[in-house]
This record gives sequence, C-alpha cells and structure tokens, in this order.
Amino acid sequence: MEVKLHEFEKIYGDANKAAEERRKYLERVTGAKLENIGKTIIDLNTVVGRNIENVIGAVQVPVGVAGPLLVRGDYANGHFYVPLATTEGALVASVNRGAKLVTESGGARAKVLKDGMARAPLFRLPSLVEAVEFVNWVLQNFEEVKKVAESTTRHGRLKEIQPFIVGNYVWLRLVFSTGDAMGMNMVTVASDAVAKYLQEKFPNARLVALSGNMCVDKKPNAVNFLLGRGKTVVAEAVVKREVLGRLGVTPEAVHEVNVRKNLMGSALAHSYGFNAHFANIIAALFIATGQDVAQVVESSMGITTTEPREEGLYISVFLPSLEVGTVGGGTGLPTQREALALLGVAGPGDPPGTNALKFAEIAAAAVLAGELNLLVALARNELATAHERLGRARPQERA
Amino acid sequence: MEVKLHEFEKIYGDANKAAEERRKYLERVTGAKLENIGKTIIDLNTVVGRNIENVIGAVQVPVGVAGPLLVRGDYANGHFYVPLATTEGALVASVNRGAKLVTESGGARAKVLKDGMARAPLFRLPSLVEAVEFVNWVLQNFEEVKKVAESTTRHGRLKEIQPFIVGNYVWLRLVFSTGDAMGMNMVTVASDAVAKYLQEKFPNARLVALSGNMCVDKKPNAVNFLLGRGKTVVAEAVVKREVLGRLGVTPEAVHEVNVRKNLMGSALAHSYGFNAHFANIIAALFIATGQDVAQVVESSMGITTTEPREEGLYISVFLPSLEVGTVGGGTGLPTQREALALLGVAGPGDPPGTNALKFAEIAAAAVLAGELNLLVALARNELATAHERLGRARPQERA
Amino acid sequence: MEVKLHEFEKIYGDANKAAEERRKYLERVTGAKLENIGKTIIDLNTVVGRNIENVIGAVQVPVGVAGPLLVRGDYANGHFYVPLATTEGALVASVNRGAKLVTESGGARAKVLKDGMARAPLFRLPSLVEAVEFVNWVLQNFEEVKKVAESTTRHGRLKEIQPFIVGNYVWLRLVFSTGDAMGMNMVTVASDAVAKYLQEKFPNARLVALSGNMCVDKKPNAVNFLLGRGKTVVAEAVVKREVLGRLGVTPEAVHEVNVRKNLMGSALAHSYGFNAHFANIIAALFIATGQDVAQVVESSMGITTTEPREEGLYISVFLPSLEVGTVGGGTGLPTQREALALLGVAGPGDPPGTNALKFAEIAAAAVLAGELNLLVALARNELATAHERLGRARPQERA
Amino acid sequence: MEVKLHEFEKIYGDANKAAEERRKYLERVTGAKLENIGKTIIDLNTVVGRNIENVIGAVQVPVGVAGPLLVRGDYANGHFYVPLATTEGALVASVNRGAKLVTESGGARAKVLKDGMARAPLFRLPSLVEAVEFVNWVLQNFEEVKKVAESTTRHGRLKEIQPFIVGNYVWLRLVFSTGDAMGMNMVTVASDAVAKYLQEKFPNARLVALSGNMCVDKKPNAVNFLLGRGKTVVAEAVVKREVLGRLGVTPEAVHEVNVRKNLMGSALAHSYGFNAHFANIIAALFIATGQDVAQVVESSMGITTTEPREEGLYISVFLPSLEVGTVGGGTGLPTQREALALLGVAGPGDPPGTNALKFAEIAAAAVLAGELNLLVALARNELATAHERLGRARPQERA
Repeated sequence: MEVKLHEFEKIYGDANKAAEERRKYLERVTGAKLENIGKTIIDLNTVVGRNIENVIGAVQVPVGVAGPLLVRGDYANGHFYVPLATTEGALVASVNRGAKLVTESGGARAKVLKDGMARAPLFRLPSLVEAVEFVNWVLQNFEEVKKVAESTTRHGRLKEIQPFIVGNYVWLRLVFSTGDAMGMNMVTVASDAVAKYLQEKFPNARLVALSGNMCVDKKPNAVNFLLGRGKTVVAEAVVKREVLGRLGVTPEAVHEVNVRKNLMGSALAHSYGFNAHFANIIAALFIATGQDVAQVVESSMGITTTEPREEGLYISVFLPSLEVGTVGGGTGLPTQREALALLGVAGPGDPPGTNALKFAEIAAAAVLAGELNLLVALARNELATAHERLGRARPQERA
Repeated sequence: MEVKLHEFEKIYGDANKAAEERRKYLERVTGAKLENIGKTIIDLNTVVGRNIENVIGAVQVPVGVAGPLLVRGDYANGHFYVPLATTEGALVASVNRGAKLVTESGGARAKVLKDGMARAPLFRLPSLVEAVEFVNWVLQNFEEVKKVAESTTRHGRLKEIQPFIVGNYVWLRLVFSTGDAMGMNMVTVASDAVAKYLQEKFPNARLVALSGNMCVDKKPNAVNFLLGRGKTVVAEAVVKREVLGRLGVTPEAVHEVNVRKNLMGSALAHSYGFNAHFANIIAALFIATGQDVAQVVESSMGITTTEPREEGLYISVFLPSLEVGTVGGGTGLPTQREALALLGVAGPGDPPGTNALKFAEIAAAAVLAGELNLLVALARNELATAHERLGRARPQERA
Repeated sequence: MEVKLHEFEKIYGDANKAAEERRKYLERVTGAKLENIGKTIIDLNTVVGRNIENVIGAVQVPVGVAGPLLVRGDYANGHFYVPLATTEGALVASVNRGAKLVTESGGARAKVLKDGMARAPLFRLPSLVEAVEFVNWVLQNFEEVKKVAESTTRHGRLKEIQPFIVGNYVWLRLVFSTGDAMGMNMVTVASDAVAKYLQEKFPNARLVALSGNMCVDKKPNAVNFLLGRGKTVVAEAVVKREVLGRLGVTPEAVHEVNVRKNLMGSALAHSYGFNAHFANIIAALFIATGQDVAQVVESSMGITTTEPREEGLYISVFLPSLEVGTVGGGTGLPTQREALALLGVAGPGDPPGTNALKFAEIAAAAVLAGELNLLVALARNELATAHERLGRARPQERA
Repeated sequence: MEVKLHEFEKIYGDANKAAEERRKYLERVTGAKLENIGKTIIDLNTVVGRNIENVIGAVQVPVGVAGPLLVRGDYANGHFYVPLATTEGALVASVNRGAKLVTESGGARAKVLKDGMARAPLFRLPSLVEAVEFVNWVLQNFEEVKKVAESTTRHGRLKEIQPFIVGNYVWLRLVFSTGDAMGMNMVTVASDAVAKYLQEKFPNARLVALSGNMCVDKKPNAVNFLLGRGKTVVAEAVVKREVLGRLGVTPEAVHEVNVRKNLMGSALAHSYGFNAHFANIIAALFIATGQDVAQVVESSMGITTTEPREEGLYISVFLPSLEVGTVGGGTGLPTQREALALLGVAGPGDPPGTNALKFAEIAAAAVLAGELNLLVALARNELATAHERLGRARPQERA
C-alpha cells in the first residue's frame, strides 16, 4: 500500500505526531537520521496549513547581531541591533564593522521613496483594437475596479494600474498598499477578483495567467527596478575621513573601488546589481525575520553610489524593490518574531503600515553598513585575508 | 563603559555562554524577549569563528518534504524526498504535486553541463597596450598561474581563465573545479594568490578589487547565464497527457502559459528569469541544506522550455549558475546535514565532487517539479484559490 | 600654415565652393578621389549650419520600394509603397513579399499607444533629503515647470515628469509632445530652460548633465522599452492560412520559429530585440526619409508575437520607442522629402502631429511585413538560399 | 491588370529604365514627385540583384569630414579625415572638435582585441541527452565541421564553435574570420552547409532556424558584448590637462560626467550603452562607407571609461561588436567607395583582412573623439547652447 505522506495530519490528528511519523518513514526508506530536524520548539500545529506542508520539523540557522547601528529614518530612529541568520563566516562581522563606521559618523539617513505591492494578470484579447479598448475601460473605471479589488481584503488598497500592451496581450500591473504585510497573498486574491470581474465585463478577454511575469515576483527584472515593488528605499551616510583613516583607507580609494567594481564591472556583466553584496545582508535578514526568502532575488537589486567629499565618504544604497512585512508569512514564528521584536517591529504598526516602513529603513541602513565595509575591505585588499584581521578561521564574506 | 558584544566569547570562554549574555544584554537594551532564539540544539562553539559572529542563538525554519521524486541523472538515480525549508504556505505542496506528476510519467532526466566556480579579480594597467600584454602573458603562462592558484588549495583546480579588457582595466575570470564544496572561499584565496603573484610579475598592474563583479557573485547577471558558474544544469521530463488530463489540463494549455508568461512576460520585464518561480524551490532547498542563501539570486536564474507532444508535455528547466556544495558553509550544521543526508549527499562524495553533482541534479529536478506544478496551476487558473483545492488556509505559492 | 577646413564657408562665401575646395584639399593630402561625393543635387548652402559641418558633398544610397502594403491605422489608411534605402541585397524583396502576404490577408492594423519625446537632465543634491524635497517641489509645481519648458518652443508641450532618485542624484525625465517633429532638439532646449530655472530655485541643485542617460537617446535600454519614447506603436495582421500555404508553410511552423528564435533565443542572448530583424526595416526607412539614423538603436527594440489560429497566423510587432518625425532633421532634404511624400507624410500634418503619427503607423506595418517574411523564410529554411528563389546573386537579408 | 513592380527590370531590360518607369508609376498612384530620387550617379544596373530590389533611384545624404584625427593603431597609423554622413547638425563639428583635442594630445591608440563574425543556427533534438551527444560530437569533430563550413567560401575560416544548450534545443554559435568583408552573407552560407551536414549525420536533429538569435545580428544583446562579434576594439587617449583647460574644463569634471551619466545613468536605465553617443558616430560612418546600417544597433554598444590623471584625462572607448568591412555590401558603390578611400581602406587589404582591421581602429578612434567632445560639452553645460559657441543655427548633437 502506498504511503501518502501528506495525509499524516489527517491520520494522526496532530501535526507534531504526523511529523514524527513522517521522519520515521523517511529514515526507514532513506537510511538518513532526522533526529535534529525533529528537535524544534515550533508547535507544528501552528504552521501546518499556513506555512508548510508535509512538515518533518525545522532547520536551525545561527543568528548573530550587527550593531549598534544608528538609523535616522522617518520611522526608524535610534540605535538598532540587526539580527542576521547565516552560515557564512565573517558576514555578521562585516556588517558589524560597517555599522560601527556608520554610527561613529553620525548614523545612516533612510527614506522610503515608494511603497506598493504589484500583481500583473495577463489577458489575451482577440486583437490590438480590443486590447486598447480593454485597457482604456479599465483606466476610466479605476474606481470600480478598485472597489472589486478591495472587496477581498481588509488592508489592501489599490493605488494604481499600470497597463502594458504587446500585440493582443495585456498585462494589468495592479499596485496595492498592503499595510504591514509584504502582501503578495493579499494582492493575488484581489487580482483574482479583478480578473474574474473583467472577464465577465469583457467576454473576449481571456485570463492567460493570474501572474504574467510583469509583477515581477522572484525574478530579477527591470520593471521593479524602474517602477518599484514593495518598498523603494534609499539609505545614505557620510563616513568621516578620520574614521576611514583609522582603517588606512581614504574616501577616494573607496570611491574608486565602487566606480570600477560596482559600476564598471556590473556594466560589463550586465547585472541588476550595481553593488558589492546587497544580497548577503538581505538574505541573512530575511531568514532571521521570517520574510519570503525567494524574494531576495529582486529585493537585493540596487545601486551603490559614492562621492569623496572633504569631510569624508558619501555613500548611499538604493534598493528599488525591497519586499518586506512584519505580519504574515513567517513573521509570526517563535524565533522570527523575536528577531523582529529586537528591531521593535514585531506585528502590526500603529498606525498600520508603519512597522513595515520602519523595517525597510533599518534594512536599507544595514545594507549600507555591509556594503560600506566590503568596499573598504576591497580597498584595503583584505577580502581573502579577512580571517587574519578578524581573528577567524574563515575568509570574510564574499562578493 | 562600552559593551563590546563581539568580545563576549573571549570574556566568557564559551560560545553558548557568550550568546546567553548577549541575549541578556540585548533584552535589556531593546526590551525584546529572545528566549526562543536561545533554544537551539546547535553547540554554538562549533559555529563561532566559522559560520557566524556575535551569535545569539538560532532561528528555526519549518522543513517539509516533497516526493518521492524520481530522478534519472548521471549521479542521482532513484526516488528522492526533497527537504524544503520555508514559511510560505503551499510551496511544499506545490513541489510535491509536481513531483507526483513527474514521477508518474517516468521521472526527470537531469544533467550537469558545466561545472566551475569563478572569481574575477580586477586589475588596472597604465594603458590598453599594457593591458593586452598582461592578458597575453597570463594566457601564455596558464600552467604557471595554475600552479600558483592551486598551491593554496587541496581540492581547487584552475580550469580556465576568461579575460575581459575594457580600456586599461582587466578582469581575469578564474574558473575552478572545487570538488564537493561550493567553493567560493577556496577560489577567493586562490585568486588572491594569483593576484599577488601577477602584481609582482607586473609592477604596473594594480589590483583594484579581488572581486571585480565579473565573477559574478550574488548579483543577477548575463556572464554567469552565458558562461556558467557553479553547476550549469538541465532537467527535463515528458509528462503524460493522461496524467495532466486528470488535472483537467492539456499539454497545449500549459505550453501556452509558458510562452506567454515565462517567455513573453519576462521579455517585456527584461528579466533574467524566464521561468515562473525557480527561486521558490531554490531558496527553500538552500535554507534546508545549508547553502549560501544569498546565492539564490543567480542560482535561480534560468529558462523553462515546453513542447506539447503527442504523448504529453515535454518540459525542461535550465539553470546556468546553480552554486551548491555538500561540504563547507552551513552544510555541516546538525539539521542541515540531515537534510543533505535525506538526499544521500551529506559530506564529500566518492569520488570527490560526485555528491555536489548529484545534489545539483536533484535540485534541478525539484525545480522542474515546482515549475511544472505552477504552470499547471496557472493553466487551471487556480493560483489564488489553491487553498480551497488543497484544503489550506492560505493561497498557493506565488510567482 | 594650418588649413582650417571648417572655415572654408567663411573664406569662400559659398557652401558648394567651400565643399569643392575641401575635396581638393583632401584629395591632395590623402590621394583619394572624391568626385562622386561631389556630384550631389543638394545645394550645400541649404544644409550647412543646419544638418552638417565640414561638408564635402553627399553619399548616395539606393532606394527601393516595398508595396503596395495595405495599412489600416487611425491615421494611415490605404495602400502604401514604402521607400527603403539600403545596400543589403534582398531586404527590399523581403519586405515586399511580406507586404504582399499582409495585403492579401486584409492588411495590417496599426495603432500608436503612446507618444512623447523625453530628455532627462541629471541633478546632484547634497543628500537624499534634499533630493526628495527637490522632486516633490517639481511634481507639485508641474504647471510652473511646464510654463518654463514651453516658453522655449512653439510645438513642444510638457506632458509628464518622471522622476528617479538614486542616493543624492535625481533624474527628471521630461516627456513632451512634439507635433510632427521627432523633437530631440526641441526638448533639449526646453529641458535646458527647466534645468536653469530649477538651479535658480534650488541653489543646492547642481546640473551634472543635461542628458543623464535616462532619456534614453541612442542606447538600447529598458526605460524606453517600458515607458516609451517617441511613438509606442503596435501593428498586427492575420495572415491567411492559404496565403501561407502557397509558400509551403503553416501558421504553426511560423509560430514555432518565433517562439524558439525570437523569444527563447533572445532570452538566452539577453537581448532587447525579441524579434528577427526590426532593425533592417527601420534603418532602411530612416535613411530614406531623413530620420536620425543613430536612433535606429532604440527605435528597433521590440517584440514579435504570433498565434496560430484556425484562419491563419496572427502576428504582431510591438515597437516601444519609435522616434520619427516628418519635419526637422533630414526630412526636408530633396530626396528624403520625396520619400516622405511617397507615403503622403511630407512636412507638417493637419492637424499638427498627424503626419508623424501616420508615419509611425506605416513604419510599424512595414516592420510587420519584413518580420513576417523572414519568419516564413526561416520556417522554409530559405535564409541562405534566398538568392536562388529570388533570382538574385546574393543571399537574402539576415538576422 | 496588376502592375508587378519587381518585374520591371525584366520588362524594360535595363535597371535605370526600370527605375524610371517605377517612379512614373508611383508618381501616378501616389501623387508624389520623385525627380530628385531619380537624379543619382549610380548606374542602377550595378546594384540591382546585388544591393537592392524594386529600385527607384537613390537618396542623398550630406557628408562632412572630421579631422585630422591622429590614430596610432596596429594597422592605422597617421592622420585621418573621417567621413560622416548625417543630417544632424553639429555632429560633424562635435567629432571634429574631439579629434582636435585628441590629436593635440598625441593621438588615439587603438587595438582590435578580437575578430570574428558569428552565425548561430538553432537545432531541436528529441531530448537533453541527444542534445549533449550532438554538441559533444560537433566539438570533437571540429576539423570535419570546419572543412564543411569552409567548402562554401574563399575567405571565411571557422575559428570556433560556441555551443549553448537549453533543454532539448541547441545553438551552435559558429565564429568565422572573414577577411576584409563584414562577412554576414559568407557565414550564413557556411552555416547553412554545416546545418545541412549535421542534419544528415544526426537525423534526430531538426534545424529550427538558421539564425537562432544567439548570433546576434541587429539586436542589442549580452552575447556579443561578452564574446564579441565582428571586431572587438578599444581606443584610448590621454587628453592633456592644458588642452582641456582651454575649454574651461578639468579632467576631474569630465570624469564626473562619465561616472554619473554613462555609468550610473545607464545602470539605472539598464542600457547596453554605457556611453554618451557612440551610435551617432557609428551611424554616420556606416552610412558614409556603405556598411550594413542596421548593425549600428550592436556595433554601437560599449563602455566609455575615464580616469583623471595628473597629466590630463585618460579616456577609452570599448566597442565589443563593431561589424565592419571594406569589401561587399555597399562598400563598392561610387560614393561609399570614395569615403573608404579617404581613409585609405577601400577594397581588400594586403594582406587580406588588414583593411577591415585598419578601418575598425579608425572607427574606434573617431568614436573616442566624438565621445570625448560630448562629455566635455556636458561638463561645460553647453549641450543646448552649442549653436551659439559653434556659430550654428542648431543645437549640438544629442545623447
């Protein structure tokens, strides 16, 4: 008889028991031991049907903190200790040293420039003419479409519809504000309602895919880079000349690395990352705080700018598509919620949405710290030998 | 007196105690509770100075399994249960259903087309003329450079040098085989040795950055897409018409979604992901198995192809830059090692390198399963309503 | 004594004489004969100081016509003979055969989706905070900025300002309607006025470059692709199954070539051209009609879509950034003006702007014809052997 | 009775007469006058069946010269007057002033880094396994394939095969040296022979398209950028500080414009042109010299680098995919041949191939001159007001 692993919850009536039986079964057929995966503090009943299926336990990822990092945002103000979950030696140390440089220089200014989660259903019309009529109707009846979209959600608000026509195909990029949630589920359900509604209105419009890859979720792309998705955020700092001097580098030297590596190198590579290693910080922060880790892909896109100034090094990071939330997804799990609490952003903000905005500002400042440190390290040519200076057995973070 | 969090290990002489004191300190200054983060099975002495700094404990991420998935690779042969660490409801269920479709249809063929980890130091020469001379010398003295590079590593082998000249700047993209390790640290140290050696030989060559962003690490880019980095791997399957028919879809309908969404939509978005959601599967697999999660960025680049055939749907996934290892990084942590063991690829392979190759094949097959299922779901227009059919409280995975 | 070629007009008082003397001088110092270049019908006095400097005569490029091509646009209606200046054998024949297929099938529908010429001055502000204030002021005082911009031009109208902030740098993408002119000069002058005005208002805003490469002029790019520049235009046709059948191909076969070559191949190549050879038609049409030929670069970006239908092959071409005009630039030269007249679009339209719109529709339809024919040729595998079938000494156009 | 324009040569027995009759016909049906187009020095019998079909005459484009430009290449050595065919006022003046700056500073060094024309037929195999076998066979039997390819051509030599596999599809990027010809026709015919040969050897390999868009011809793309097509060429110069000083700018100011506009602006725009206006110079040079103007698209891709030095401004231009020839195409037409002769590169070189190489070096140096001047103009903020300083009625060239 075939074993149906996904029915174990139904059979055993308890998710923890079901997971145990699943482990036993897997141990039997694969010969692997799964005892550590089984030793989790998560009550699996709280995650099954919400965060995971066919659950067998949990994986444990070490968490370190970088800080204090002084952030001066519109929502985040003060010193923060940034939780980073990683197994890559020297990453936390790197962000930590960057945080020290930034904080000693007066902190990082951060600002969210844009805020909106997008979903872009793709429709097929018989021809260009009908496609244009379809789009025109949608734009002229924005309020009606908005009502349909928002009927499905408490927090989501349809802000804008960005239409794209190619031949007889139409993408409607629906952009929502989503409060403190990252909001993908919310906007998917709302977009589904819109799609159903429009297909009723326009019998000649066929939904090809509720997501037509112009959203764009979990793929690097130019749309989010130019139009934003999630939070579009910038952080900046002026790192004092004497602070850098203590490490033996000048603002000019760090600027040179940024121009040659981050701009010229990435130009030649045709990269969406005109930066050194945004992804390192974003990935570690996302794992620690229960974000959707696959969204590291576009959340880590961005540009680092530098300017040598008399007083020191101006440096900024631009993240056009940082997709974060403080409610929903994995943010409520026991350890992840604590990581958010460490930053003062666990759960919904007051007023709603402010926790996610604050989180985005801190994230950008942390990216700035990590980026600064790696550029300094490269200017000092210490990438491969970081272990010596940091007293560690392993080379520093890479990029 | 200032508290130096990173000195706690030295002060307390034990990493677990140090972490505890760090938590206490952070709880005091932030008001956050960190008790769950403290409850980890990891002996922090084993990770400090290797995987993490300023450690305060661990984050726990639920793990589910998708499978059995029948893989017919050159290294992976048989049925596999794929561990996926995620907090995004319906993702595991999605890969699981895809695995079922694939397995019922005879499994997925997988093949590693290329294998090599790259690091590209960036040099400045006085002029174009010297830049060309520099590159010519390096290419003509490949064996000498290889000896220098390999003097730093037991497993790394320099396979190729790909030079790029822009004006008076030179990138040497050094490509290594790295055994079962993902290999970034290994090639960074080896590249450092090469850079030092070349600067001695060519006093007019100045190292601008040991990584010049043509490697390319943790940024989406065209270089890895075209030339490969880590494993370049393809998986394919022919999903039987009747198997799809049970779900109410035809090969033609799934192909149509792939053409309009994954090819046309991504074309318009100027994406490096001509796929629906490779990143979802890669991220979950990377977290579960202790990979470098920031590398999800380029490891999830790729193309999905489909062909409707008489017998069913031909589908393939192409991942040009899948960066994975079974030793090093986070692969040795208690839970991560078990996840690798579940796939039969924990630790070094015999002969060396074969575990990483086997792992890459399984990863590609898992991506195929997940991709297939989402395309089917879109063709059925079930993205937003997955929860109903799957008996879950949350919509299905997104893309 | 040094010869100053650019002063010959001043010295000789007549441009034709100056050109003759320049040719003599060049013949003397280079040994080349320039007699044919001298034999032009252009009165060089009409172009010096307007179209060219240091003029020595003219180059003559053969012009052929493709047609009749039936176009059903909002402005262009009827059968057109499209002038193409080229030296690439088989190109005119290719567009001609495509035109025949399209016309026999009822013609090509064409539509301009968007219309606006952009120039994006780049400003430096002291910091992010001032950058945001600057942009907010500009957006809130749109009418004021519009007045400043339009004070410099009779035909230009500022339609929209698209701001982009990266760190302390700001691009203001100013989008204008420009009547029947392509409009680059017009919007450059208007943008200069805006830049001067803003620098007076904001003494802390420094103009870095009047064009900051976000316009984007004469470089392939994603901004124009997504937001448009010049005319964003689509043309479509349904080519009857029997019409294709006469050439021995089916709609399905042509669709297959489009999917594998234009979508999949261009995806792998990371191209901005998801098409076979838009540039061939655009370049030949631009030379013939006095357009700015360097703008072929972005004007030829675009996507070809196909759908096999019962009645035949649906095919469309999408050109997001077609930059054309019927006044200004080279449109008034003797031969170029005739080429425009052949299409019924020489000089200003009535009402203004309609000639440029009509021209854009015809251009898109011509691209459609050329694209269709090459896809058919590839499906028949006749690319290399076109000369045999066409009775020509040279292979067909390439892509 | 339907008029068949393309049969006029057959009917009238003379191409000039046929063109005249065509003009008459077109004048009748369109009402346009075509007398100027008819006044060409080209004997149309020499171009019909070689360069053009349905010919009606020629378009005349003004030609100016920029220079003397001192070039120090491996093939081009001395002072050159560069012919530029354009209708865009101030372009020639711009290149001319740049040439002056470069020449006064000791000239431009130029070097061709790579040379090879590519064509990439696309094959479909039944599965990944056969695709890999197919590619392996091709690589292992390179000499055999080379023999087949070269059997079709006197000058073409197969240098390399670059294979790309995606699922069951295979692109073979065949790279040839093509002597003094740009070579597209040559390599198309040779690739056709290879494709036929391989399909005989591998009955399970089906040619999808002789060009699979990985060549890449006439579309902007990353493949040519990274691997080259045509000539990959660099030119550089060190412009003396005092020379720039006379124009009121410093090396530092010009460098700043390059970093912010050409690198940062193009990064944000996701451009393949990290330059100001390569396309302007390339297009004008291509028209003047009978190149394939549609190839301006990829021939104008590239990067401008700058370095402020004590002695002045180091500037270089990198053109990865400059596709030029001195024989074939339109290079033999009366006026175009003279333009080539002006540069000393008309017809075949001795030894073969050297004329095309020399031409590529001059082209790169001319691009350098034009690029330098525009950067200087932007640094002086003279873009919109160029007409005043240059005593012209029209604004300067744009970008």
